[in-house]
Amino acid sequence: MLSQSQIKHITALKVKKFREEFNQFIAEGTKLVMDMADSQFQVAGIYASGEWIVANLPLIRKKNIPVFETVPREMERLSALSTPSPVLAVVNIPSDNDLKSKFDALFCTSSLYGAETLVLALDDIRDPGNFGTIIRIADWFGIGTILCSESCVDLYSPKVVQASMGSITRVTVIRCKLAETLNTLSGRFTLSAHGEGLPVYGTFLEGDSVFSQTLTEHGIVVIGNESRGISPDLVPFITHKLFIPSFGSSAPGKAESLNASIAAAIICAEFRRGK
Amino acid sequence: MLSQSQIKHITALKVKKFREEFNQFIAEGTKLVMDMADSQFQVAGIYASGEWIVANLPLIRKKNIPVFETVPREMERLSALSTPSPVLAVVNIPSDNDLKSKFDALFCTSSLYGAETLVLALDDIRDPGNFGTIIRIADWFGIGTILCSESCVDLYSPKVVQASMGSITRVTVIRCKLAETLNTLSGRFTLSAHGEGLPVYGTFLEGDSVFSQTLTEHGIVVIGNESRGISPDLVPFITHKLFIPSFGSSAPGKAESLNASIAAAIICAEFRRGK
Repeated sequence: MLSQSQIKHITALKVKKFREEFNQFIAEGTKLVMDMADSQFQVAGIYASGEWIVANLPLIRKKNIPVFETVPREMERLSALSTPSPVLAVVNIPSDNDLKSKFDALFCTSSLYGAETLVLALDDIRDPGNFGTIIRIADWFGIGTILCSESCVDLYSPKVVQASMGSITRVTVIRCKLAETLNTLSGRFTLSAHGEGLPVYGTFLEGDSVFSQTLTEHGIVVIGNESRGISPDLVPFITHKLFIPSFGSSAPGKAESLNASIAAAIICAEFRRGK
Repeated sequence: MLSQSQIKHITALKVKKFREEFNQFIAEGTKLVMDMADSQFQVAGIYASGEWIVANLPLIRKKNIPVFETVPREMERLSALSTPSPVLAVVNIPSDNDLKSKFDALFCTSSLYGAETLVLALDDIRDPGNFGTIIRIADWFGIGTILCSESCVDLYSPKVVQASMGSITRVTVIRCKLAETLNTLSGRFTLSAHGEGLPVYGTFLEGDSVFSQTLTEHGIVVIGNESRGISPDLVPFITHKLFIPSFGSSAPGKAESLNASIAAAIICAEFRRGK
């Protein structure tokens, strides 16, 4: 049984304002909690049924994470899911300094020009399911870093965390002023000793078919907002305009677009598949 | 202003039991309502704000659809969306006979062997967002027919309809006993004069990379359940086992799978892009 203040604290983490105040978020379900415990994230506490605790005792002891036994009625209050899992973790949000050092490690060395460095940049992604799904896609395709604009939905909202299916523990997401960041990077790499600019890809209706383009193995791929696409202030930094062609009927009522995470998946597959 | 019985009737359509009883479903938002009005679906009524009606009067008159003016408070009750749109349509569910004739037209002729006939078969897709998104993907890639197992989530649930973004009006979805259907089709085409069997594709962990396989331009692609993959009773009908390779780190915690609609998108793109 938990105290009222514990319940109040954890329940509050469903709301962005309180996640920012307490610097914590929640992660639910055995796989996700295990991924969190095995990652660089710091798990502040595990809240689980007695059965779950007994079944997972070795792991919990090894990780030295505080564990609190709960009853189903409590899990229903704590959970952000319609069907609560028997386990939930409260996890600390990494400090901005940690992220900044990762950013510097990535962009202030020449590693961006490593053969396999591909970075996604999410511009104003508002749907938490899309955000989480894109993190999962990046993980699948070996993309270790995602930049996201400050207008994207909160990375630590329960829906983003759950939709990432644990990939949030393996992909570094850096929230930043995207135009400013692209400006800095474009300038730096254009003037670099590599003799070439930084390839920045984005999808546009007037772009070239992603299926026939030669794609570099490194660079930045900008994924635009669900309804408005890529923001005008980012357009000047795009060096390669891509388009995912549609097929079949050209009837006027045809699908006008693909969902943002679907487009991201097709583009990532195309970068990775080799021509 | 609507009558209480109108409000009760439309609100009930959020629930599967009542959709089946009344043979109707709801579609919300200007684009989707317009797509419905322009399609073979029969729109029983449009419920909209006075402003919306004035702005869209020419269309409404042309289509001869009964229109009912609503106030915002009513739309909040009728809508299945968290942010109600100013317009909602009540649409009739096509009768099984209509679908059966489409099915016969597709499979009882040799048209399945037309150069571009690719069919998706959804096996136990439970998430409405996935179902709707896959319909949208099919529309984008010119796939006009989807088979779905009887265990799939209801096609006419508001979340499926909305996630399809209007593509539900252009892609024919046929609910059937999938194993029985595949059995019938496999038998028919194996023994056909074409001298070749019906290619039936599905994704499996032990499959061959979809990026290096030669894919036919026709055939059936089975998309499995979100957590369990393709049902054992369908496996005997799969003639080509495919796999979407992952890239980069092979760390033990790596993403274990892709979302069903993401996998469907990558596979459809691969069929359509040409090698």
